[in-house]
Formats: sequence, structure tokens, C-alpha cells
Amino acid sequence: MNMKVREIAKILEGKVIGDEEVLITGVSGIKEAQKGDLTFIANNKYRPLLKSTKASAILVPSDINNTVDAVLIQVENPSLAFANMLNIVGPEPVVFASGIDPTAIIGKDVLIGKNVSIQPYAVIEDHAVIGDDTIIGSCVYIGHYTKIGKNCLIYPHVIIRERITMGDRVIIHPGTVIGGDGFGFATVKGVHQKIPQIGTVEIGNDVEIGSNVTIDRARFDKTYIGNGVKIDNLAQIAHNVSIGDNTIVVAQVGISGSTVIGKNVIIAGQAGITGHINIGDNSIIGGKAGVTKNIPPNTHVTGFPARDKWEDMRLQAYARRQPELAEKIKKLEERLEKTERRLKDLYGENEPENS
Amino acid sequence: MNMKVREIAKILEGKVIGDEEVLITGVSGIKEAQKGDLTFIANNKYRPLLKSTKASAILVPSDINNTVDAVLIQVENPSLAFANMLNIVGPEPVVFASGIDPTAIIGKDVLIGKNVSIQPYAVIEDHAVIGDDTIIGSCVYIGHYTKIGKNCLIYPHVIIRERITMGDRVIIHPGTVIGGDGFGFATVKGVHQKIPQIGTVEIGNDVEIGSNVTIDRARFDKTYIGNGVKIDNLAQIAHNVSIGDNTIVVAQVGISGSTVIGKNVIIAGQAGITGHINIGDNSIIGGKAGVTKNIPPNTHVTGFPARDKWEDMRLQAYARRQPELAEKIKKLEERLEKTERRLKDLYGENEPENS
Amino acid sequence: MNMKVREIAKILEGKVIGDEEVLITGVSGIKEAQKGDLTFIANNKYRPLLKSTKASAILVPSDINNTVDAVLIQVENPSLAFANMLNIVGPEPVVFASGIDPTAIIGKDVLIGKNVSIQPYAVIEDHAVIGDDTIIGSCVYIGHYTKIGKNCLIYPHVIIRERITMGDRVIIHPGTVIGGDGFGFATVKGVHQKIPQIGTVEIGNDVEIGSNVTIDRARFDKTYIGNGVKIDNLAQIAHNVSIGDNTIVVAQVGISGSTVIGKNVIIAGQAGITGHINIGDNSIIGGKAGVTKNIPPNTHVTGFPARDKWEDMRLQAYARRQPELAEKIKKLEERLEKTERRLKDLYGENEPENS
Repeated sequence: MNMKVREIAKILEGKVIGDEEVLITGVSGIKEAQKGDLTFIANNKYRPLLKSTKASAILVPSDINNTVDAVLIQVENPSLAFANMLNIVGPEPVVFASGIDPTAIIGKDVLIGKNVSIQPYAVIEDHAVIGDDTIIGSCVYIGHYTKIGKNCLIYPHVIIRERITMGDRVIIHPGTVIGGDGFGFATVKGVHQKIPQIGTVEIGNDVEIGSNVTIDRARFDKTYIGNGVKIDNLAQIAHNVSIGDNTIVVAQVGISGSTVIGKNVIIAGQAGITGHINIGDNSIIGGKAGVTKNIPPNTHVTGFPARDKWEDMRLQAYARRQPELAEKIKKLEERLEKTERRLKDLYGENEPENS
Repeated sequence: MNMKVREIAKILEGKVIGDEEVLITGVSGIKEAQKGDLTFIANNKYRPLLKSTKASAILVPSDINNTVDAVLIQVENPSLAFANMLNIVGPEPVVFASGIDPTAIIGKDVLIGKNVSIQPYAVIEDHAVIGDDTIIGSCVYIGHYTKIGKNCLIYPHVIIRERITMGDRVIIHPGTVIGGDGFGFATVKGVHQKIPQIGTVEIGNDVEIGSNVTIDRARFDKTYIGNGVKIDNLAQIAHNVSIGDNTIVVAQVGISGSTVIGKNVIIAGQAGITGHINIGDNSIIGGKAGVTKNIPPNTHVTGFPARDKWEDMRLQAYARRQPELAEKIKKLEERLEKTERRLKDLYGENEPENS
Repeated sequence: MNMKVREIAKILEGKVIGDEEVLITGVSGIKEAQKGDLTFIANNKYRPLLKSTKASAILVPSDINNTVDAVLIQVENPSLAFANMLNIVGPEPVVFASGIDPTAIIGKDVLIGKNVSIQPYAVIEDHAVIGDDTIIGSCVYIGHYTKIGKNCLIYPHVIIRERITMGDRVIIHPGTVIGGDGFGFATVKGVHQKIPQIGTVEIGNDVEIGSNVTIDRARFDKTYIGNGVKIDNLAQIAHNVSIGDNTIVVAQVGISGSTVIGKNVIIAGQAGITGHINIGDNSIIGGKAGVTKNIPPNTHVTGFPARDKWEDMRLQAYARRQPELAEKIKKLEERLEKTERRLKDLYGENEPENS
């Protein structure tokens, strides 16, 4: 990489504060950056590093205009602008040439679009459909009648069982299992009898699903993942769950059966949501929260059991005050005892009858 | 599907309340049901939907006999009855023809029963045993000397290491790893030296294990999964754990090393159980609970640290009352101060000596 | 197995208390041990079993010298000594002969060291490097330009994406995914746009990683796993995390993006650590703890939100005392009311003006 700040600012439609002629030779995080590097500020925690970073140029939001050693490039969204630079200067992405590897096993009546890449040892069962420009990684399993959209990237070792449908531009990372049986049993005299899970999973467009995620098929009907949903590694989505458009599910989250999640919700890492409830649009569920009942839209809940964030903080603060309050109670008891004794002294033997 | 309520009731041995001649053309959940659908009531949360559902017939337990628009079919266990209907009217299940795919790799001295299906790219190591009527999915790995029972269904990409044994009618979903090394190290001068994990895993009959589960092999002896145990996705069963018959382990549960779980226990989602303890028969461990000590039989524990459910609810209720109690303490302090002042006024200078 | 206590003590450099001529025919845990077995005491919980075990000989630390029925063999580290015995008397380990299976797919310009074993259906992409004496299990995927060190054991179905590097003697258990994209999006008008994750993962020497773990590649730069780190099953290590030497990460732990973990840290099961924070050397993070801020070195934190262990225990103890404290408040109120009434009786109509 060898670009002047001026050239970078032009590509990113940014405004330069400082010397436009500075030469940029690399990209890096703000902590690790060295002379010659372009970096950026996205997380407020890192703002103090504006002064100490060794980077030569920093992408900043338009409200930052301090004079620092590094040249600033003001842009609307520094994360996104930096991402665009990464695409330009990053290492060559791995290319999987189109075509079907001779070791891939393709069933009967499989429909394969144009410009599809099917890597070694992939297994595609009868009646599956693979859309144009999609990449199927090595050892991927695509079940019977499953439909994969266009321009999808299915990484190695993804397992997608029968009768699943997904839209276009879906990315699925390795080891993820889609369409495993829902966990449903009817217990008869102590023995758990399997309830057939004859439903499916429907995944929208522009969905990204991390590594080793599990999304179960519905008992009947479908488990639903809306357009633009992003799911992180090791999350569990149970049968008949529905997730609205553009919702974010962070790593190791668990969502129990038949729960309905709204649009634009953020569910932070390791949170758990019980079954058969509704989470309203634009809600935020804190990390490790345990949600046990419906959450209205536009609500931020935290803790276990999850409650309104401010209420949770208030109760946490009171919990920290417990030792102090216990001490106050002890002192009150001592003072009251003293007061009672004095009062008795005053009454002497003439204790009132009604007390 | 095209059946009259009368015919369905006959198959399910149910009692009809309403018009037996109503035509049923599909099955569905109670919320999504349309005219012509058969549905059922299992979860009490959905009882209010009896009146609003568009379903034409509803499987109900025998204590429900309200007159609603839909015809009712009283059965002993509506979930199970509905499951039976799903088996009759659901989509054709995927069939894996028996036989060994030519791409499957079968080691030396492997014993393969009658009517076994071994799918593409499965690898079965030397001395393994596969029981009659068992299906081994594509890319499954079966280690040396491992024994799989009869009528098992091992989904694609399951990894079962060496010297594991399992019973009959076991179902294992994709991506699950059985027999990985237990997590055992002896730390000598800050360096963690591996303790060999030479034990095995023994799995009973009629066990079902979800997707991307991990069950570690024992240090010595065995990790044990009893008959009829059902384990959901992404659960972690550490080395030397023992799980009693018909116990249910929900998604993302973690059970630490050498812990012994009784029979008919229910461990809800994301619960964690520390190592070297005992969980009694018929116990229930709540979702996200953190169990740190032995649990007697027939006990319902919740929370972190896990305690008796009612005690936990009581403490939660008191935690919510903290602000109110703090307010009471403040008022007591004010009142007592006032009382003390008045008392001092009464005493005047004649303060008693002993106070 | 057929060895005298004397012979075992010689191998383990232990000191015998009791009859050196006792014959040992097997090894076992202290609970399951039978006559003829050698066992050991590592966990203090099991010390009471010294008297009741049926074992014929017990490896003990040097501070145990009680006379019991079994012969004692004092050693420095009973766990490690027992581990050494297991290596001697355990079942033959599975051997994977060196050589490249004809079904393995090896890309262009792959460098393969001496004495390497590459099992069936492994896929190794262009420009990868595999060190001497390393075993690559069946169906393993090694991405472009990835470098695996010497003497590594990569179990079946491990997926390692492009440009990852790892040191020597690394063990990775089945189903683990290394180098999946970090979970990074820039949200523009409600739509989450992918931030390219062009960094890598660097893994040191002597690292062991469990089954179905996920370790994401960095946004840029690298996700770092230090020498001697041990990671248990189903853990999640997000992008740009750095883990210091000899740190232990127990099952189902989640570490969020850009967090820096020190050396010799222990992170117990199901703990979660937020992003962009520092965990000091030698710290201990309790099971299920939720760490939300920096932790200084040598600190033991527990609970959610995680705090100093003793402070957490103190607050837990006060939480349990809440019902008692509420009762005290109620009694104080009653007593104070009584006192106020009496005082009023004394004052009669002559209420002081200033009250």
C-alpha cells in the first residue's frame, strides 16, 4: 500500500484536517498502529488514544476535529470507511473457481445455477437447488429439496438438512447445522417419545450466520430468520423461533422454542430467552441476560431475571448498599433500645395500661 | 390430507365434541392454523387461543370441553396424538437406501450388520461395529473399536472417536463430537501437562443427542449416558460425568467433570453444574441456573447460585423490595432522631448515669 | 497390568508407606477402584475415601501418611504420577500411519514435512505448510497459506481457514473452527454492512483446543493464543482477542472482541467477558461470572456482574439475610411506634414547638 492521505480522503469522501500529502503505507488498529499506518476511531473507549497513537492518519467522525500529530480524515461512518479501505488494500481474498469438483456428489434432479463453485467432497442430495454465483465449500452437506439462493457463500462443513430454503447473499460459516430436529418430546409414563419435527427453516436475504451455530427445524410450519439478520458463533435457535429483519444475535445466545423476536433487536452474548414469548422491535437484551417474559418494543433489559436496564442498575446499586443498610438497622436497634430504657426510667413503675 | 374429524378421532382413540363430519385438510400450530386445519393444545399459555384459533379441529386434554367454534377431540396426551398425526400426514421422510456407498472408507475387521446404510465419505476405522438397520450419514467418522447399536441414525458429520459404545435406536444430530479428550491437566511449575484420557463413553438405548454437542471421554473408566436420555444442541458433557435414565439436558447446558446426574432429571437451557457433585433423581434445574453443590432428589432449584426454587423466588422478591426497605430505614432514622430529641427535652440536664 | 507396588514406586519416584510387595493389576478412580487397583488422591473432596476405597494402592501427596488398608505411595504430584502410569498401562493409543491418503486433496505449492500423516478426505489448500510429524485427521480442512507446526495432532473435521499460523505440538479436537470471520458490522440506516475481517489467528506452541470451539480471525492484525494455552469445548474466542501464555479457558466460555487476557489466567466454565477490556495475569474468573470491566492481576472475581470473590460472597451472604433484615425493620417500626405513643402520653398536650 502506498497512497497519500489526499487520495484516501477522495475515495472515502472524507474531509482532511492536516497535511494531505502524508504518505500511508498500511492499515491497523489504533493501538497497534505504526508510522505510515491509517487507522480509525469507532469505539469511544479508544478516543484517548487519538493523541498517543503512532498512526499517521485517523478516520474520525465529523464531530472530532482536535489537532493531533496524526492527520484526521472526517467521514460519516469511520468503521464503514475503514472497512472500504480494507477491501481495497487487504490481502487478496481466497477465490474458489466456479465449477463442480469431480469429487463432489450431486444427487438426482439437482438444479445448479450459473457460475456456481462446488468444492471437493460436498454432498448435494436429490432435488436440491443452488442459485447462481453461489459457493459451496468442501464437505458441505445440502439435504433433499433444500434451496440455496444466489451469491451465497457456504463455508466448508456446513450441514443443511432437507427442505430448508434460504435467500440470496447468505453467508454461513463452518460447522453450522441448519434444520436439525427441534427438541420435542411427549413424556408418557416417564418415557420421552419423539415428536416428529416435520417443519422447516426459512432464511431471508443478506443473512450471515457464524461458526458452529445450530438452527433447528420447526415442529411443523417453519423456524424463520428474517432479512439482514446476523447471528454470531455457537448461538442456538430452537424450533419455531421467528427472528425479525436486521436483528443481531451475538455469540452463545440461546433462544427457546416458539419465541418471536422483533426487528432490529440486539441480543448480546450468552443471553438466554425462554420459549413462547415475544421480544418487541428495537429492543436490546444485555449480555448474559435471562429473559423470562415478553419484552415490549424499544426496551433495554439486563440481568437475570431480565428487567428494565435502569431498574436493574438501581437494584444492583441497592444490592451493593446491603452491608451499609444492615449496619444502619443495627445502629437503629441500639439507639431504640437506649431510648426505650430511658423512657422506662421516666415511667418508673407507672407503665401505661394500654401499651 | 383429506380426512374427516371422525376418522382422525378413530385413529387417535379420541372423543369428539362437536361435528364429526368436519373435513380436515392440514395440520398446524394453534396460532398459525387456518380453516380446515387440525391443531392441538399442549402448553397452557395457548389455552386462550381455543376461542380465537381459525383451526377446524383441536386436540385437547380430557378436562377441556368448552364449546368453541372448532370441533374438539379429547385425547389423553394431545402432544403425542398430534405427533402421531404428523407421522401420518407429514412430508415423506428422507430415505437413505441400505448399502455402503463406494466412497465410504471401511477399515479392517469392521463388522457391519444387516440392512445398514453408509453414506458417501463416511470413514469407519478398524474393528468398529455397526448394528443392523443403522444409518451412518455422509462424512461421519467412526473411530477404532467403536460399537454402534441397531437401528441408530447417525446424521452427517458426527464424529465418534475410538472405543465408544452405544446402544440401539440412538439418534445423533450433525456436528456432535463424542469421545473427545476430557479436559485434564496437571500443572507443574505453571505449565499444564496433559493427563491422558484413556477412558471411554458409554451411551444407552433410545438416546437422542442434538447438533454440535460435545461429550468427552473419561480420564479412565467411562462417561455414561443412560437409556432414554435426551440431550439438546450445544450441550457440554465433561469427562466422567454420569447421566441417569430418561434425564433431559436442554441446549447449551454444561456439566463439569465427574458429576453424577440422577434419573428423570430436567436440566433447563444454559444451566451449568460444577464438577464432582450429585444431582438427585427427578430434580429440576432451572434455565441459566448455576449449581454449585449437591442437589437432593425431587428438588427444583433455580438461580445462581442455585437454591430451592421457592427460596430463590422469596429472595428475588426481597431483592425487589430493597428500595422500599431502604426508604423505611431512612424514615425510621428520622423518627427515632425526633423521638431522641424529645426525650432529651424531657430529661433536660438530668441525663441518667447508666445510659 | 501386573506390577508390584515397589516397581510402580520406582517408576514414579515415590515413597512407599506399607507393603511394597502388593500386586497391582489395574488402575481406576478412587470411588470405582477394586482390589488390585492403583488409584490416587488429587481432589480434597475425595480424601475421606482414603479409608473406604477398595484400591490396593493409592498415590498421595507427601503430606498424607495415615495408615489405611491400602498401601500409600507418596509422590510430588499424584495427578501427574497417575497420568504417567496411565500412559504405561492404558490401552494402545490409536496410531495413524504416516503418509498421505490417496483420497486427501493437496493443493498447489503445499509444503508437507517429514513423517506427516494425512487421513482420508482431508482438503489442504494451495500454499499451506504442514510441519514434520504432524497428523491431519480425516475430513480436516486447511485453508490457503495456513501454516501448521511440527508434531501437531489435528483431529477429524477441524476447519482451519486461510492464512492462520500455529506453533508446534498443538492439539485440536474435532469440529473446531479457527479463523472464521470476526462478527463485525457497520450499521448504516438500520442495515448491517459487513466489515471485512482481513486479519488472522496466531496460535503458539503446546496449545490444546477442545471440540466445537470457535476462534475468529481478527478484523486486521491477529487474534492471538499464547504458548501453553488450554481451551475446553464450545468456547468462543472473538476477533482480535489476545490470550497470554498458559491461560486456561474452560468449556462454553465466551470472550468478546479485542479483550486482552493475561498469562496464567483461569477462566471457569460458562464465564463471559465483555469486549475491549484487560484481564490481568494470574487472575481467576469464576464459573458463570460475567466480567464487565478490567480485572487487575492476581484477582479472583466471581458472580454477575463479576466482582472480587470475597466481596461477592459478602454480598451473597447479605442477600440471604434480606428476609431477616426486613423482619428487623418491621419490629423496629412497631417498637418505635410504641415508644412514640408513650412519649406522646408523657408530653400530653404540651408538644414542644420545635419538633
